[in-house]
Amino acid sequence: MSISVKDKIRDIKDFPKKGIIFRDITTVIKDADAFKYVIDYFYDMFKDDKIDYVAAIESRGYIFGAPLAYKLGAGFIVIRKPGKLPAEVERVSYDLEYGTDSLEIHKDAIEPGKRVLLVDDLLATGGTICASCQLIEKLGGKTAGIAFMIELSDLNGREKLPEDAKIVTMVTY
Amino acid sequence: MSISVKDKIRDIKDFPKKGIIFRDITTVIKDADAFKYVIDYFYDMFKDDKIDYVAAIESRGYIFGAPLAYKLGAGFIVIRKPGKLPAEVERVSYDLEYGTDSLEIHKDAIEPGKRVLLVDDLLATGGTICASCQLIEKLGGKTAGIAFMIELSDLNGREKLPEDAKIVTMVTY
Repeated sequence: MSISVKDKIRDIKDFPKKGIIFRDITTVIKDADAFKYVIDYFYDMFKDDKIDYVAAIESRGYIFGAPLAYKLGAGFIVIRKPGKLPAEVERVSYDLEYGTDSLEIHKDAIEPGKRVLLVDDLLATGGTICASCQLIEKLGGKTAGIAFMIELSDLNGREKLPEDAKIVTMVTY
Repeated sequence: MSISVKDKIRDIKDFPKKGIIFRDITTVIKDADAFKYVIDYFYDMFKDDKIDYVAAIESRGYIFGAPLAYKLGAGFIVIRKPGKLPAEVERVSYDLEYGTDSLEIHKDAIEPGKRVLLVDDLLATGGTICASCQLIEKLGGKTAGIAFMIELSDLNGREKLPEDAKIVTMVTY
């Protein structure tokens, strides 16, 4: 069965602020067939890549990352906003349009040499993904692959991604 | 294979504040076998309950809810903090120890009569779960089941849950 996932994405104008078209994936994931199609697609793309862990970025990344970890038989690692993880963490800060933001990972989340598939819903400017790759690297892990539900190609986020990672996008605008 | 999931949970003292023992599930989900065991357990418990949608509460609920939706062949619905969902929402407020908080769901997330499995990581006092059940009810959905990774039985949250829902807890303290 082939499904046009792009057709299932709902465009919402002026969210979160005027002039932005928000690509709403809730209409994809509430459709059981479309949701299954997306997860199975990513599974097929990465099933031979010896993935030890799937790491996903809070919170929409979990929606795709957790089923993918389950299906791949990999462990699941969470990358979170500061102050939410209870044990010892590594932290990386990154620039926003105005100001900075940070992401954290548990220090013992990934053992050195492990192969990690990083998952997020959206590739825009690449700031959060880059910070996440740095977190994985700090622990000695290897970002073997990166999966995005949506890529906004105008923003050139792909240029910032590690050159040797396998990058898979479901839908590109 | 039988796995003691409780043994995989990490206890962290004084998080998020002094006197609290935080039950850290990141050590369960990073273990591929334990993660699979948890999802398969919930799947077995609900596979014959004609679940149309799995709804999960931001953000740790997604970790268990999304794979379960995938495995059950159900759609996945997100329940979020205010201001994060882009389309029209229903909102329910609930009391905290000090003050109130709110949760939102898209108005078109669930069609009347659909059977919903609600998933969260933790049952404590039951405030967020009750609010979530109310959101499902507002849309005309039926909370057929509720799954928790952890239940803190001292806090009596279970007393607040709908009497006719099937309630499954993985680990009880």
